[in-house]
Amino acid sequence: MQDGLMLIISGPSGSGKGTVVKKLCGIDDFALSISMTTRQPREGELHGKDYIFCTEEEFFATRDSNGFLEHATFSGHYYGTPISYVEEKIAQGMSVVLEIEVVGALQVKNVYPDALLIFLVPPTFEELRSRLKDRGTENDDEIERRIRRAKEEMEELAKYDYLVINDDIDTALEEIRGIVRAEKLKPKRSQSKIDIFFGNNDK
Amino acid sequence: MQDGLMLIISGPSGSGKGTVVKKLCGIDDFALSISMTTRQPREGELHGKDYIFCTEEEFFATRDSNGFLEHATFSGHYYGTPISYVEEKIAQGMSVVLEIEVVGALQVKNVYPDALLIFLVPPTFEELRSRLKDRGTENDDEIERRIRRAKEEMEELAKYDYLVINDDIDTALEEIRGIVRAEKLKPKRSQSKIDIFFGNNDK
Repeated sequence: MQDGLMLIISGPSGSGKGTVVKKLCGIDDFALSISMTTRQPREGELHGKDYIFCTEEEFFATRDSNGFLEHATFSGHYYGTPISYVEEKIAQGMSVVLEIEVVGALQVKNVYPDALLIFLVPPTFEELRSRLKDRGTENDDEIERRIRRAKEEMEELAKYDYLVINDDIDTALEEIRGIVRAEKLKPKRSQSKIDIFFGNNDK
Repeated sequence: MQDGLMLIISGPSGSGKGTVVKKLCGIDDFALSISMTTRQPREGELHGKDYIFCTEEEFFATRDSNGFLEHATFSGHYYGTPISYVEEKIAQGMSVVLEIEVVGALQVKNVYPDALLIFLVPPTFEELRSRLKDRGTENDDEIERRIRRAKEEMEELAKYDYLVINDDIDTALEEIRGIVRAEKLKPKRSQSKIDIFFGNNDK
């Protein structure tokens, strides 16, 4: 069986990446990466589904044995992406989707050059601003701060493998699925087909 | 408008690449590259459609001004792929399909790193042998020589961008179209979308 891919999706807030990631993981052979965290579960959150909830000791033990793809601290709590879960799913042929901001994504790509980096943006800056305004959760200063941050992040775009414009969500999803299908045709990911071609298929 | 791609298809005889190339060029935004040749037109061949028929002087003049993507000699006649035609079509948004054997394909890739190299093979070696036998145009020695050549060519597979298994022709065609769609989402090919995003769209 062909391995799945590690798919890292970045994009400014307002790009709709949360929705894209959620919908993507609802279809066939995509799985969402699950993070470990030291924070307490919120109402309705399930251990092993939303997060792997753990103690600081457990978190540090995983970190010190290089068990995280990437990890970070927010508001005094630790968050990390366990490699073991990602590798297990990939070996089962599932493509694992990770939502990581630009700096973290580039770090992961350094360690796992085969990880696919996808940058998601709305069609225009004006659209981004209007989406941020429409959701009404940030004030004008915060919106402008996010716009500036998006511009800065776009400067790293050349280091990404693909740029997907999220104008229509179904088109964006279809493009991401198409990217995965095409990537699976790369020779480095085709060893099982090459084995069958040469008659070296032991399975 | 987004540029088309330069698509180079290689594969052993018996891989069905002739049929794939022909069918591909029958659909939407794909165009077949047209070669220049010094040989005489055969019955039914049209100048400007099947070949650009030219004199040796014209051929040498194009060659000496580096006007060929690649060129070769067969049975005392010269054949070359004019760059100008390929570039013109690409600028019109068409993807230009070239059928080139492995050595030539790798040479083109050296000069045009953006050219996409696709390797086409039947699902197994046994299938390749059986296809060559079925068409009955080669004797057993010639078939074995072609099989050996295919094995040698497969050693260069890692230098190709994609491997497409031609088991079912419609699947192979759909995979090649999917490759082109995905490649158009690469940041290096997305300048027009980036310009629109930043509001730098002069068109």
